Amino acid sequence: MADSKNKAAKLVGITVPKETNCGQWYVEVVQKAELVEYYSEISGFYILRPPSMHIWTSIRKFFQDHIEPMGVQEASFPMFLSATSLAKEKCGTHNHRKEHVEGFAPELAWVTKAGDKDLEVPVAVRPTSEAVMYPYYAKWIRSHRDLPLRLNQWNNVVRWEAKQTTPFLRAREFLWQEGHTAHLTEELASEEVLQILDVYAAIFEKLLAVPVVKGKKTEAEKFAGASWTSTCEAFVPANGRGIQGATSHALGQNFSKMFGITVEDPDKKGNHLHVWQNSWGLSTRVIGVMIMVHGDDKGLVLPPRVASLQTVIIPVGLNAKTKPEERTQHMEKIQELKVTLQKAGVRVHVDDREGYTPGFKFSDWEMRGVPLRLEFGMRDAAAGVVVTSRRDNGEKGTIPVGELATQVPALLEKIQEDMFTKAAGVYESRRIKLTEWDRVVPALDSRNVVIIPFCGGIKCEDRIKELTRSEPEEDENGRKMPGMGMKSLCTPFEQPDGLVAGETKCLNPECQDMAKAWTMFGRSY
Amino acid sequence: MADSKNKAAKLVGITVPKETNCGQWYVEVVQKAELVEYYSEISGFYILRPPSMHIWTSIRKFFQDHIEPMGVQEASFPMFLSATSLAKEKCGTHNHRKEHVEGFAPELAWVTKAGDKDLEVPVAVRPTSEAVMYPYYAKWIRSHRDLPLRLNQWNNVVRWEAKQTTPFLRAREFLWQEGHTAHLTEELASEEVLQILDVYAAIFEKLLAVPVVKGKKTEAEKFAGASWTSTCEAFVPANGRGIQGATSHALGQNFSKMFGITVEDPDKKGNHLHVWQNSWGLSTRVIGVMIMVHGDDKGLVLPPRVASLQTVIIPVGLNAKTKPEERTQHMEKIQELKVTLQKAGVRVHVDDREGYTPGFKFSDWEMRGVPLRLEFGMRDAAAGVVVTSRRDNGEKGTIPVGELATQVPALLEKIQEDMFTKAAGVYESRRIKLTEWDRVVPALDSRNVVIIPFCGGIKCEDRIKELTRSEPEEDENGRKMPGMGMKSLCTPFEQPDGLVAGETKCLNPECQDMAKAWTMFGRSY
Repeated sequence: MADSKNKAAKLVGITVPKETNCGQWYVEVVQKAELVEYYSEISGFYILRPPSMHIWTSIRKFFQDHIEPMGVQEASFPMFLSATSLAKEKCGTHNHRKEHVEGFAPELAWVTKAGDKDLEVPVAVRPTSEAVMYPYYAKWIRSHRDLPLRLNQWNNVVRWEAKQTTPFLRAREFLWQEGHTAHLTEELASEEVLQILDVYAAIFEKLLAVPVVKGKKTEAEKFAGASWTSTCEAFVPANGRGIQGATSHALGQNFSKMFGITVEDPDKKGNHLHVWQNSWGLSTRVIGVMIMVHGDDKGLVLPPRVASLQTVIIPVGLNAKTKPEERTQHMEKIQELKVTLQKAGVRVHVDDREGYTPGFKFSDWEMRGVPLRLEFGMRDAAAGVVVTSRRDNGEKGTIPVGELATQVPALLEKIQEDMFTKAAGVYESRRIKLTEWDRVVPALDSRNVVIIPFCGGIKCEDRIKELTRSEPEEDENGRKMPGMGMKSLCTPFEQPDGLVAGETKCLNPECQDMAKAWTMFGRSY
Repeated sequence: MADSKNKAAKLVGITVPKETNCGQWYVEVVQKAELVEYYSEISGFYILRPPSMHIWTSIRKFFQDHIEPMGVQEASFPMFLSATSLAKEKCGTHNHRKEHVEGFAPELAWVTKAGDKDLEVPVAVRPTSEAVMYPYYAKWIRSHRDLPLRLNQWNNVVRWEAKQTTPFLRAREFLWQEGHTAHLTEELASEEVLQILDVYAAIFEKLLAVPVVKGKKTEAEKFAGASWTSTCEAFVPANGRGIQGATSHALGQNFSKMFGITVEDPDKKGNHLHVWQNSWGLSTRVIGVMIMVHGDDKGLVLPPRVASLQTVIIPVGLNAKTKPEERTQHMEKIQELKVTLQKAGVRVHVDDREGYTPGFKFSDWEMRGVPLRLEFGMRDAAAGVVVTSRRDNGEKGTIPVGELATQVPALLEKIQEDMFTKAAGVYESRRIKLTEWDRVVPALDSRNVVIIPFCGGIKCEDRIKELTRSEPEEDENGRKMPGMGMKSLCTPFEQPDGLVAGETKCLNPECQDMAKAWTMFGRSY
């Protein structure tokens, strides 16, 4: 490749390095790789274009394949909540209900008019569907035979955030799935919370090649109204921040008491039991996490399993001297390669655009994150090989034409695995186990997250956030922010050694309590 | 089956006959078969429960399998339209735009507040997405290489209808897919309109076993802003009304001129061409049509291909005299039958509820529309057979246990075909070709639709509607309505013989024009 061609190609590429300006880099990548378009009519809204919808539908299929055998069924509830039912909830004496409703109140979008008439009772667009669904759970669940009730819906929700919005990571409307289930016993409910968490972790690790740490949220960070919250926590190496992946909540009997969801005790006639509920959700945010974890200065890097286009074939070495019949013959051979790959189940495209140099095309497809480039010139044709170039690590190779149907799928699988292994190695090395308080802030400043002995207290966690504020730094949108303190990400289920109950102190120097568990803290999204 | 058992079972069944009170019958069926739950918080909204979502996801899979090979890609656009961009459209000088925007204005749901703050510019929930999407088509489409652009989205839309709402058939929020495509030439666009219409027809006929007539909408009935509209028209025998199934529109250059969607003429540099657009949509209304067409006085009748439960096994002949070990042994055998059927790909359930008679269970599953009932008693076990009972026609039979895996799927296919054949025969016999005006109203009163020579004029169609008003009749909600005039359903693509151009007059006795085509008219939804 001549340098001059590459230079020309750079004109359409990403203009800022990921390491030094992660926020601006992200904004460029999502738009130039055609994952989203900003919706200029209303701020905080984004159009999801086909490459990102391909990722989302891949996730949807994968998730359905796992939850259907568990007995989870699909439903679709209305998108509006009425003001009357919300007001009713607020008046409730239950703290959990109040907490839940008030938590979302500042972000509710209110429909007050239909056509030119004012609505008698305004309705809010759902920010989540507990309050829409649970009155019907109370109606439908009569007997223990109606349990478990397990419903999931794929929909859009609106949270009219005041904070700066970012495609995928914080949008005012987003797509997600929300599962809501009811069980007879706490044990059955808890079991499901973790089963779902495992499916979420598999979406990250198997589909998106993004390593996560599974664990429990602290009291300060759990879902408002939940008994406890389990989570998958991912990590963005470029800025050293943690990012919540997806959460699966044990709601306990909090909501069943609010909404009166009971069954007759199968063991004791006349006695009524409140059901045990869970809710769990995964949103298009996961796509943003994937972009952040894998992308590089050339643009997007897509894991093959979710890439709408897994490989692109680019004709090379054709020039003004090439005879027309030779060109035609060569392009026909390329079409044959394409058909071979399609038959092998590979999502492939031939870039036969005229008037563009191969160098331009290389950069263009690199920016769009296509996992594998195949180059094919007349010399390659004579030698019976295709030249390969991996997007993830730039590695080049050749594959005999006769072995494309087996070697390309195998290479794509290898890329998928290598992407995960690399990212897992980075996360592992940037998750620092610390027992000295003084090392915490320097570790954060070096773009790590930390695992420390922690008492679990809400006040202690608040204090830790204050104590770890640091120099102003740039946020994902390139603005200088007052240095962010760290918050807890999760208490990992896989606990490191070295914490002795009743002996190891909480690492916060101002805290007198004993540590309950190793807890992962970090600056975060 | 003892009669006394059936009587007990009827308590939970449908209380009104379909023929005499179609509206009330429908309302009972959709709720008792657990297809929907009324959302009591806000009128005109419904909860879609798992059996209806199963139908919808079956349709979604089928449609995706057909449009993906055509090159249609999935996208997701925001759910809101800003008031500013709507106002801009209204000021436009284009009649089509005005028509399109004003058509939906009375039904728009307006968000005016977020949290407790008034929005500077109110936003409306999409009633359809032309105005959301097409500004971006103008941005994305630059060159003929960007064509065809074919995007589809599965989403929810809101049309705050003032009219009486009915689950599936007219709801204020509904699920649909909306496809929006742009092409270089009129010919390419037209070809796609009809390809999509064929997929819609296949959804009706192959999945839902509902016969449709394909044709073109008249000028009076086409989509506001379309150049022409193609449609699938179904028929409800119980009240003799036509019902629009799904429409595929050729938008021509109407919208591309409004939104400035152009490409450079590939044949003439510097010259700009407006693209040719289509839009096509199919909604959850199709589920309502299916219920209306197949249901009977016992309740829902589901075509096997879309039934979430295709067959239910009911143990029979067990009673107080049955020894516990015999019962256990028998139930184990039933579990084996279930596993056999599951392995054969059949969606099967065993109704092993205790404390309910077989008769009660029979009625319950009949009401829910399960296509095939399998009865299995100890005598059947001894004889090595299973007793079958078809939901669609009540036909009984037996299948040797060893042949379940082949014969049950075959029988389900047979039921699917027979349901379609029966409905097609009814529709055929109730689609009356008429050349005498005086026979029109009597034909409508006898619950038929008519095919008549028609000039195609908008005013003539208005007049036909007035001339065919009749005695007050009941609508789908059981209210007496002033007798509905007939409107055009479509001009069928398959034209009957007998219409001579320049000779056959329009059938409206007051109209002096020549007939352009045989056109299907009827009372309708």
